[in-house]
Amino acid sequence: MYDVAIIGSGPAGISAAINLKILNKNFIWLSSRAVSKKVGQAPLIKNYPGLPDVTGGELAWTFKNHIERMNIKLEEKVVTGVYDTGGKFTLLAGEEQYESKTVIICSGTETVKSLEGEESFVGRGVSYCATCDGFLYRDKTIAVLCTDKKFEHEVEFLAGLSKKAYVFPMYQGYDIKSEKAEILLKNPVKITGGQKIEKVHFKGGEVAVDGLFILKGVISPSTLVHGLEAEGGIIKVKRDLSTNIAGIFAAGDCTGAPYQYAKAVGEGNVAAHSAVEYLAQNK
Amino acid sequence: MYDVAIIGSGPAGISAAINLKILNKNFIWLSSRAVSKKVGQAPLIKNYPGLPDVTGGELAWTFKNHIERMNIKLEEKVVTGVYDTGGKFTLLAGEEQYESKTVIICSGTETVKSLEGEESFVGRGVSYCATCDGFLYRDKTIAVLCTDKKFEHEVEFLAGLSKKAYVFPMYQGYDIKSEKAEILLKNPVKITGGQKIEKVHFKGGEVAVDGLFILKGVISPSTLVHGLEAEGGIIKVKRDLSTNIAGIFAAGDCTGAPYQYAKAVGEGNVAAHSAVEYLAQNK
Repeated sequence: MYDVAIIGSGPAGISAAINLKILNKNFIWLSSRAVSKKVGQAPLIKNYPGLPDVTGGELAWTFKNHIERMNIKLEEKVVTGVYDTGGKFTLLAGEEQYESKTVIICSGTETVKSLEGEESFVGRGVSYCATCDGFLYRDKTIAVLCTDKKFEHEVEFLAGLSKKAYVFPMYQGYDIKSEKAEILLKNPVKITGGQKIEKVHFKGGEVAVDGLFILKGVISPSTLVHGLEAEGGIIKVKRDLSTNIAGIFAAGDCTGAPYQYAKAVGEGNVAAHSAVEYLAQNK
Repeated sequence: MYDVAIIGSGPAGISAAINLKILNKNFIWLSSRAVSKKVGQAPLIKNYPGLPDVTGGELAWTFKNHIERMNIKLEEKVVTGVYDTGGKFTLLAGEEQYESKTVIICSGTETVKSLEGEESFVGRGVSYCATCDGFLYRDKTIAVLCTDKKFEHEVEFLAGLSKKAYVFPMYQGYDIKSEKAEILLKNPVKITGGQKIEKVHFKGGEVAVDGLFILKGVISPSTLVHGLEAEGGIIKVKRDLSTNIAGIFAAGDCTGAPYQYAKAVGEGNVAAHSAVEYLAQNK
């Protein structure tokens, strides 16, 4: 059982991790990437006090260096669900499960927009985890929305199990070999169905499916955590960065504008301190 | 008329100034010191992401370097009052007055506790500004509470004007030469009087005075700005760091715990963005 689980490796997650390490807490840090892709992409950052005129790559490097100096480890795993299991939280990430007393969500802003109907069909045909749910769709017809080349091995795995897999690659240079895969160069926009998913719609067409896998690094907060108060993908937080669920905190871009390194780093710090205070009060 | 006035040169003020410069706003930056004394004093800072294991002195240097690279200037002046003068704010600092559409208070936490009764006697015998109000007390009996050696020239000035000055030096190694000054090595605790101040009380005694000068770098927020909502010296802010007074924002230690560089820097960033948004909406 961990004291704290941090989700996300952007500036907020990094700041939270550094503080929890200093505060000597037993924490796990989970993210789809070693260091947030977004940080590394920024051309020039002028307003991170103390590091004038750094590129995103330089800032990512210095953050990475800071973490390594403190011997902080990151588990490169996509968290697909957080469940309140009575006084603690259970996090699902691939085939792993983690238990933690508190959670700090630093998942950034969603770069992939949710589909219409996506949230309502989670658990009713919509899945984010190939290894968790793939076997449910053996010899069935599925669709796979793949947002990044790095998830292609999961697409192959799913297509291999399926009767037929409609694959929507959302990036350039896809390379999917399975004979059961049919590539559709379309943007899915909507999911419809009854008790379960029935169709995935895109501009100019639709496909009938038994299930839809959405493979992305960041899952919409309210999909990730059932009952989490959010609006338009932005988690509602109080000044201490607590959310509407006791024990769950959020920091960084996922709490809203301004989308700034300094703001994210500050919030990661505050969220870590608030989580530690919560732990002290709920022993 | 400035767009924004920043009060304070700690990490929050620095961060706000950097952002306003980038956002091309016409701002003035006022503080009692070139760079916050508190930053420079920290022995070792491990949790400012990107700058692992820096001393306070190093961090202060790198902040100063950042500001100088961006050609940002600080006015070394103590702001003694902020007044809402109808759609704008008037700031008093020594003999100067500044007008600004918005104000960002980054005044840190008060290192000098307010005296009992202090707030209620402001303008009725309690003053924070020797050059502004000294002449009102010519040939009168005053008390001077001096919190820092750097204000000793103001003590000499006040004592010189007065009939008699009871001086309370709150630091080691005082050196006050005026013959009209009587040094009292006591801690003032309370002010009493009727329409005007009458007595300054300390443990084991009191002195009858016509006025009391309190010379300190940071003035309690609710004393500084009439009507500003604060509790125990902590300014009440919303998530966007706006206060109860439209156009006044606050950031850093003055908004409460945790007292952290990263938190202050993040809040300075957010407050600057909120002020700019406010300006856009209130043209």
